[in-house]
Amino acid sequence: MPSYTAPTKDMQFILHDVLKIEASDIPGYGDLDRDFTTAILGEAGKISSEVLAPLNVVGDTEGCRMENGIVYTPTGFKDAFDQMRDGGWPGIDMPEDYGGMGLPYVMNTATGEMFSSANQAFTMYHGLTHGAASAILVHGTDAQKDTYLPKMVSCEWTGTMNLTEPHCGTDLGLMRTKAEPQDDGSYKITGQKIFISAGEHDMADNIIHLVLAKITGAPEGIKGVSLFIVPKFMVNDDGSLGARNAVACGKIEEKMGIHGNSTCVMNYDGATGFLIGEAHKGMRAMFTMMNEARLGVGMQGVAQAEAAFQNALDYAKDRLQGRDVTGVKNPDGPADPLIVHPDIRRNLMEQKSFTEAARAFLLWGSTLIDRAHRSEDADADGLVSLLTPVIKGFLTDKGYDMTVQAQQIYGGHGYIEEWGMSQFTRDARIAMIYEGANGVQALDLVGRKLGQDGGKHVMAFFDLVKGFCKDNADVEGMEAFVEPLKRASKDLQAAGMYFMQEGMKNPNNALSGSYDFMHLFGHVSLGLMWSMMAKASLEALANGTTDPDFHNTKLATGRFYMQRSLPMTATHLARIQTGADPVMALDAANF
Amino acid sequence: MPSYTAPTKDMQFILHDVLKIEASDIPGYGDLDRDFTTAILGEAGKISSEVLAPLNVVGDTEGCRMENGIVYTPTGFKDAFDQMRDGGWPGIDMPEDYGGMGLPYVMNTATGEMFSSANQAFTMYHGLTHGAASAILVHGTDAQKDTYLPKMVSCEWTGTMNLTEPHCGTDLGLMRTKAEPQDDGSYKITGQKIFISAGEHDMADNIIHLVLAKITGAPEGIKGVSLFIVPKFMVNDDGSLGARNAVACGKIEEKMGIHGNSTCVMNYDGATGFLIGEAHKGMRAMFTMMNEARLGVGMQGVAQAEAAFQNALDYAKDRLQGRDVTGVKNPDGPADPLIVHPDIRRNLMEQKSFTEAARAFLLWGSTLIDRAHRSEDADADGLVSLLTPVIKGFLTDKGYDMTVQAQQIYGGHGYIEEWGMSQFTRDARIAMIYEGANGVQALDLVGRKLGQDGGKHVMAFFDLVKGFCKDNADVEGMEAFVEPLKRASKDLQAAGMYFMQEGMKNPNNALSGSYDFMHLFGHVSLGLMWSMMAKASLEALANGTTDPDFHNTKLATGRFYMQRSLPMTATHLARIQTGADPVMALDAANF
Repeated sequence: MPSYTAPTKDMQFILHDVLKIEASDIPGYGDLDRDFTTAILGEAGKISSEVLAPLNVVGDTEGCRMENGIVYTPTGFKDAFDQMRDGGWPGIDMPEDYGGMGLPYVMNTATGEMFSSANQAFTMYHGLTHGAASAILVHGTDAQKDTYLPKMVSCEWTGTMNLTEPHCGTDLGLMRTKAEPQDDGSYKITGQKIFISAGEHDMADNIIHLVLAKITGAPEGIKGVSLFIVPKFMVNDDGSLGARNAVACGKIEEKMGIHGNSTCVMNYDGATGFLIGEAHKGMRAMFTMMNEARLGVGMQGVAQAEAAFQNALDYAKDRLQGRDVTGVKNPDGPADPLIVHPDIRRNLMEQKSFTEAARAFLLWGSTLIDRAHRSEDADADGLVSLLTPVIKGFLTDKGYDMTVQAQQIYGGHGYIEEWGMSQFTRDARIAMIYEGANGVQALDLVGRKLGQDGGKHVMAFFDLVKGFCKDNADVEGMEAFVEPLKRASKDLQAAGMYFMQEGMKNPNNALSGSYDFMHLFGHVSLGLMWSMMAKASLEALANGTTDPDFHNTKLATGRFYMQRSLPMTATHLARIQTGADPVMALDAANF
Repeated sequence: MPSYTAPTKDMQFILHDVLKIEASDIPGYGDLDRDFTTAILGEAGKISSEVLAPLNVVGDTEGCRMENGIVYTPTGFKDAFDQMRDGGWPGIDMPEDYGGMGLPYVMNTATGEMFSSANQAFTMYHGLTHGAASAILVHGTDAQKDTYLPKMVSCEWTGTMNLTEPHCGTDLGLMRTKAEPQDDGSYKITGQKIFISAGEHDMADNIIHLVLAKITGAPEGIKGVSLFIVPKFMVNDDGSLGARNAVACGKIEEKMGIHGNSTCVMNYDGATGFLIGEAHKGMRAMFTMMNEARLGVGMQGVAQAEAAFQNALDYAKDRLQGRDVTGVKNPDGPADPLIVHPDIRRNLMEQKSFTEAARAFLLWGSTLIDRAHRSEDADADGLVSLLTPVIKGFLTDKGYDMTVQAQQIYGGHGYIEEWGMSQFTRDARIAMIYEGANGVQALDLVGRKLGQDGGKHVMAFFDLVKGFCKDNADVEGMEAFVEPLKRASKDLQAAGMYFMQEGMKNPNNALSGSYDFMHLFGHVSLGLMWSMMAKASLEALANGTTDPDFHNTKLATGRFYMQRSLPMTATHLARIQTGADPVMALDAANF
C-alpha cells in the first residue's frame, strides 16, 4: 500500500525562505511565524499520513454505494471526517465569527495539499463545503450566514455546488432547471443536476446544496441564471432540522477514479430553495469563488503528483534491477537499485522538479489571493485572475503526467491495483476536467484574462520577471536561472504579441494557440518559481545554513528544470505562431 | 456505449497508394491486390465492429473471475472466440502447413489493429497464442511443431509467454524458476511467474505455456536461462489430451484496465516441461519474436488511439456547447457543436494526425519484417530492429496521450465509465509497460540498436530520409513536407552525433537522453510517413482521383503534423544536449 509523508520542510522553505510570509504586510501574515506554521503543518501532516492516507485505497476499492436512497461512504471515512472536524481543519481560513480559525488562505492551500495528497476523494467532502460556505459568506444575507455558516464551517453540515446538467456543462446558458417564486419569498426548484460531488452521503446531518437555476420568466441564456440554497433538510428558526426537502440522489456515477467521493445525479422535484445574491446574477456569485476553487483544483493535480512521486522514489531505491553501466553500485546484492539508471533518474527528476516548483506557484498564488482579499489590492486580484487558468490547467495537466510517470517506474506493478499507483493517475485525471475543463481554462486565459484591464496584469507579470532577472543578473550562481528564464519569458512575450497582431485579423489565430499558450505560461511561471527558490537557497548557503544538502539539492533540481523542461517554451511558441490555418483547415465533415 | 468502424479506406490508401504493396518484390506480396485486401479488411472490419467492439465494455465491467481454480472469461467472449477461430483470423500469417492462411505479416498488422481497437483485452488471447506459436515455429523440433502448431494456429489451444517473476521483470537474469532434467528428457519446472496474460481461461481445450527457467547447474544470470513448453494438459502421442500438468493459476490480478484478459499468477509445481531450442539460450528464443511482439504492442497503442478518436470525433460533432466566435454555425440549435471551437479542433487534429501517420509507420515496419523474413534481407531486418523500440515506445506513449485527449473532449462524461472513454485510456496504459517498459525501449534504442553493425542501420534510415527529400525537393506541394522533415532529421542527426561524441566520455551522457531520443526518432519517422502519404495524395490528385476530398484531407492533416507536432524535435534535441549533468546531479539520498 502506498504511503504519504507531508512535505513540511519544503513548504516551510517556500513560505519562509522564498515568500517570507511573516514579513509581509498582508493583514494576518504577521502571525505566521515559523513556529506557528511548523505547528499547523505538523498537525496537518500527521492527520494526513496517519488517518487519511490509509483510507485512500479503501475508498478506491469500496467506493460509495446507495441503498434505499441512502449513500454510504467507504469504511472509516466517517471516523476520519469526525477527526477532521475535531481538528477544525475544514474552517482553517474561515472567519472566527462563524467558528473558523481565521487564518490566511495560504495556510488552507498548504494543508489542503497534504489532505489531497493523502486522500483526494475524502478531502473533496470538506473542500466542496468550503466552496459552498464561501459563496454564502460573500453573497448571503446575514440571516443566511447565521443559519448555515457555523454548521458548514465546522462541517457538521456539508455543502455542494450544482451547476452541470446532462446536456450542459461548460455552456451553462443552456440550463433547464427551473425556480418558481413562491408567496413566502422562497422558490420551488425543479430539475436534474449531474456530477454533483458529495451530493449525498452519510457523514453529515445536513447537506446544503447551492443550485443554479432559472427563475420563471428569466432572460434567455447565461444572464437568466440565479443561485439558490437548497438544504437537504429544512432548517427551523431555532437551527434544528425540519422536514426533508424534495431533493434526492438519483444514482451514483461509476467513475474512473475518486471512488471514495459520491458523484451524484441530484433530482430536484419542487424542492424549496432560497435565492442567494441577486436574481439572474447567479454566475457572478459562482465566479466570485472561481479563483480559489480553480487554484484548489490545480493544487489537487500537484498533490497527486507529490504522493505518486514519493512512492515511485521509494520503489526506485528499493527495487533491484539491472546494473549501473558506469560501475556496480550494490556489489553485495543481486542487482543495483532502479535509481542508478539514467532514464529512471530523468523520470524522477522531472517529477521532483515539477512538483516543487508547482507547490511554490500554488503558495505564491495563494498569497496573491490573500493580498487581494485582505488588503483589497486590485492589482493582486488582477494578477491572480490572470494566473488562475494557468494554475488550474497547467498544473493539472502536468500533475497528471507526473502520476503516469511515477506509475511507469513500477513497471507491471504500476498497472495492477495492489500497489496503488494506478489510483493516483485515475484520481488525478478528474482535475483536468472539473471546475472548467483545461481547454476552457486556456480559452479563459487567452480570450479573457490576457486583455483584461488593457493587458495591465500580463504586463505586471512580465515586469515582475524582468525585474527579477535584472536584480539577479550578476548574482553568482544565478546565471543558470536568469538566462533560461529570460529566454522563456521572451517566448511568452512573442506569443502574446502574435495573439495581439494576428488575433485582430482572426480570433481563431489566437484561440488555436490557447492551449500551447497556457502551457508556455506555466513553464515560465515555474521557471520564475525555480529562480526565486534558487535565490533563497543561494542566500541560505551564503549565510552558512545548517542544512547545505537541502539547499544544494534545491539548486540542482532547479537547474534540471531550467535545462530540461523550460526549453519546451520554444516548441509552444513555434506551434502558436502557425496560427489557425493548420488547425481549422478541415471541414467538420472531412475529419 | 462507444462504437468502432474499421479504417479500411485509410489502410487501403497506405497499403496500395503509399507502400504499393502489390508491386513489391517481397514473396507473397504479388497476391495482395486491392480486391484481395478489400475482401480481407472488409471481413476483419465487420467482425471487429459487430462482434468484438460490443464486448469491449462487457469485458471491462465484468472482468475475469476465478472459482475453484477455473477462470471464467466475460459473457460473450467464448462465442466471439469461436467466431474468430471460424474466420481463421488467429492464423492469418501462419504457414498453411499448420492450418494458417500463409499471408504476409503486414496483413496481420492491419487486421490486428482492427481487432485491438475493437477489443484489446479479447484480442490478447489469440495475440499471445500467435507469439507462443511463433516461438515454437522458429525454435521447436519438427515433433514439437506437429504436436502443438496445428491446434495453436487454429486457437483450439491458446498459448502464453512466462517471463516475469515477482522480483524480476526487466532483469530476467535474476530469475528463480528451476528446471530439473528428468530421465525421459523432459524437465520438472518449479517456480512462480506473474503477470501472465491469458494464463488461465475457459475458451480453449488446452493452454501451452512457454516458460523461461533455469536448468539445475546452469550459468548465473541471463546466460543460464532456457525456454520450455509446459502444456496445461499433457498431449498424448495421438494428439488427444492426457493428464493435467502441475501448473495452476494462483490468482487473477486486479488491474487498471484490460479487465477482459485474465492476468494470472502461475504456479509451477514440478510441472512437466519440454526444452525448446538450445539449453541456456532461452533469451535468444524469446528475442527472435521481439520485433514482431513489440510492433504488435505499438499497434495496440495506435489501436486504442484510433478507437478513442472515432468516438471523440462523433461527440465533438454531436454535443452542442457554446458558439463559434467567428459566427454562429448552428443557428437553429441552442448552441454550436463542439467541433467549431479551435481548441477542440487542435485536440482532434493532434489525434488524427498522429494516428494516421502511426498506422503508416506500423504497416511500413511490417513490410520490413516481411522483407526480412520472406526475402531473408538482413538490411531490412537491421532497419526494423532499429525502428522497433521507436515503434513500441513512441507509439504507445503517444497513443496513450491521444486516448487521454479523446477523453478530454467529453468533459465530465469522459470521466464516468458510462461513455467508455475511460476504458480506452485504462486499456492503453498497459502498452507503455509490457513487452519491455518504454524506458527499456529507449535504452535498447540508444544503448544497442543505434550502434548495431557499426551504425549501418541508422545511416540507412538517414539515407532514406535524405533521398526522399532530394527526390521531392522540387515537387509542387511538397515544400510543406520536405522542409520540416529535413529540419527534424537534422535534429535527429545532431542528437546521434552528440551521443557518439559525449557518450564516449560518459555513457550516461547518452543514456540520460535516451527517452528524448526515442521520441525525437518517432517524430522524424511520422514526419517521413506524412511526407510519403502527401506525395501519394498529390499524385492521386494530379491523376484526377474520384475522391479529392480524401486526398485533400490527407494533405491538410499532414501539414498540421509537420507544422504543429514536428517542431517538438528541437526541444528533444535541446534536452538531449544537456547531457548527464542535470539528470545525475543528485545523490540518491538527496532526492
